[in-house]
Amino acid sequence: MKAKKLAIVGATGAVGQEMLKVLEKRNFPYDELVLLASARSAGKKINFRGQEYTVQELKEDSFKGIDLALFSAGGSITKKFAPVAVESGTIVVDNSSAYRMDPEVPLVVPEINPQDAKKHKGILANPNCSTIIMLMAVYPIHKLYGIKRIVVSTYQAASGAGAAAMQELEDQAKAMLAGDQPPTEAFPFPLAFNVFSHNSSLYPDNGFNQEEVKMVKESHKILGTESIRISPTCIRVGTFRAHAESIHMELDREGDLDEVRKALSGFPGVQLKDDTEKNHFPMPLEVSGQDDVFVGRIRWDLGDEGHKNLQLFCVGDQLLKGAALNAVQIAEIL
Amino acid sequence: MKAKKLAIVGATGAVGQEMLKVLEKRNFPYDELVLLASARSAGKKINFRGQEYTVQELKEDSFKGIDLALFSAGGSITKKFAPVAVESGTIVVDNSSAYRMDPEVPLVVPEINPQDAKKHKGILANPNCSTIIMLMAVYPIHKLYGIKRIVVSTYQAASGAGAAAMQELEDQAKAMLAGDQPPTEAFPFPLAFNVFSHNSSLYPDNGFNQEEVKMVKESHKILGTESIRISPTCIRVGTFRAHAESIHMELDREGDLDEVRKALSGFPGVQLKDDTEKNHFPMPLEVSGQDDVFVGRIRWDLGDEGHKNLQLFCVGDQLLKGAALNAVQIAEIL
Repeated sequence: MKAKKLAIVGATGAVGQEMLKVLEKRNFPYDELVLLASARSAGKKINFRGQEYTVQELKEDSFKGIDLALFSAGGSITKKFAPVAVESGTIVVDNSSAYRMDPEVPLVVPEINPQDAKKHKGILANPNCSTIIMLMAVYPIHKLYGIKRIVVSTYQAASGAGAAAMQELEDQAKAMLAGDQPPTEAFPFPLAFNVFSHNSSLYPDNGFNQEEVKMVKESHKILGTESIRISPTCIRVGTFRAHAESIHMELDREGDLDEVRKALSGFPGVQLKDDTEKNHFPMPLEVSGQDDVFVGRIRWDLGDEGHKNLQLFCVGDQLLKGAALNAVQIAEIL
Repeated sequence: MKAKKLAIVGATGAVGQEMLKVLEKRNFPYDELVLLASARSAGKKINFRGQEYTVQELKEDSFKGIDLALFSAGGSITKKFAPVAVESGTIVVDNSSAYRMDPEVPLVVPEINPQDAKKHKGILANPNCSTIIMLMAVYPIHKLYGIKRIVVSTYQAASGAGAAAMQELEDQAKAMLAGDQPPTEAFPFPLAFNVFSHNSSLYPDNGFNQEEVKMVKESHKILGTESIRISPTCIRVGTFRAHAESIHMELDREGDLDEVRKALSGFPGVQLKDDTEKNHFPMPLEVSGQDDVFVGRIRWDLGDEGHKNLQLFCVGDQLLKGAALNAVQIAEIL
């Protein structure tokens, strides 16, 4: 769509800032841009494409005349303002979890289920970052053979918890290297030189945390099937902005590694990085700032006998394909 | 055994240094201690239990009169000197991979297969760190129900690559925080603020690296069965000295979570850290310097229907239970 008037909600956050870069890089068409944020950030100046913008406070009347709004605010902000925006005639692409599982709201990875975007009633949801990155690596294989079951362990970056968390990781590392106590405000524990179970709350009935359950439910919604059994373990590691995932799959039908590699390398938004000789596979430091999801360590399970148990390791930039890029891509297909 | 004369080979390395601490902490009995290392480290002074020791160069005649030698040197050093030591009548407990799969050499985790230690013919091998830490969390469950299959993804610390690698992680972090290029001598890639596939070479036929294959073969040898199908993904993360592992198991028989927790907390060398309410689970920073392996995130697979698919997350100090402590424990049961 050509949005005459485009708004970014949460323009000063980690994802909001990446959205601006993605809009510029992809030369996203619009006539007018409005940057919105909380009262705390209102008044800030942002230079974008040679023009200075003043961040405006997000209010109920902010959406008058806005054709398209890219939301990257917390779930509660979205719950409050997205319906107001839709009432003003604005189409909302939301990066929070607020509407993802709403049956009226399409949940879209443009390379996978673009057709769902057409069914929107004003709001479209951008999936969870770990979900998007996993599905980009897994969907081309699912299309080939069908996937029965996934066991996935994540290595998630600080960026998933926002700009303050990224800063905190840096501050923690500096403090610890100087022998001081690391600050822990954004995170419950030090993330620098550490690893911890994802800091979302846990469901006492099954022991899984919210991030893990998102990966399962959102994957089922995006793929349009609940037949894939998914069991994730979400772990934060001390990286800044790219998530890694170790994925084990059981296929419905016998597969072929060359065919898998061909399907992955031919899939838009996916690149192979699978150099067994040089031991060079996808790494967060190399993938940070890149649009594509990188896949490597493609191999059969060590106990596999029938070429039905496949493993791989993938890395994607949490702020780009995991958030800002995917949201802008959704807007592009509208 | 009471070793009249005890030697540490590789006394100046990361594991060698921890061995000294473990000997002191456990009040390991000996009359005389000899510290051996390469020519490069010979002449260094080490203070231990109020006495100053001069590190001596490891030579063919170093083992005369030595009853017990704890080896923590590279595989090639071990291959050269362990047979010489055995010929001198010395019992060798070796931390390298040189003899682990030798059918004549017991591979021992004292809490699991102490009976194997008795069968030694001069050399006993200390298993790979990731193997020990996994088995400590998995064996009590295997004893209860039998395990059919394990899928494991590791989060491995720098210490597994030695003292120089730990220093490099620190130097890398400092350089990167200052905006400089990180040094990469011990590791092929920056580990600070990064994650990469384990830096051991890969088998081109199956795409697994040496560390992963060690976890499989050594586990089979220690447990005395090849019936457990194990498929690991070994990944390094930017932590200093404790390995974490995300483990998914298929059980032979239906299990019970309370029974699992009881078996784990009652197993010597294992502690539960499984606070779902406070989201507090095992973390490398908290486990560093601790003897025990900590286990948490104990739950059924999200798609599990018959209580046969169990998941958990465990962390153990790579230098202690993963190396020095286990080696000293082997010496203790002799």
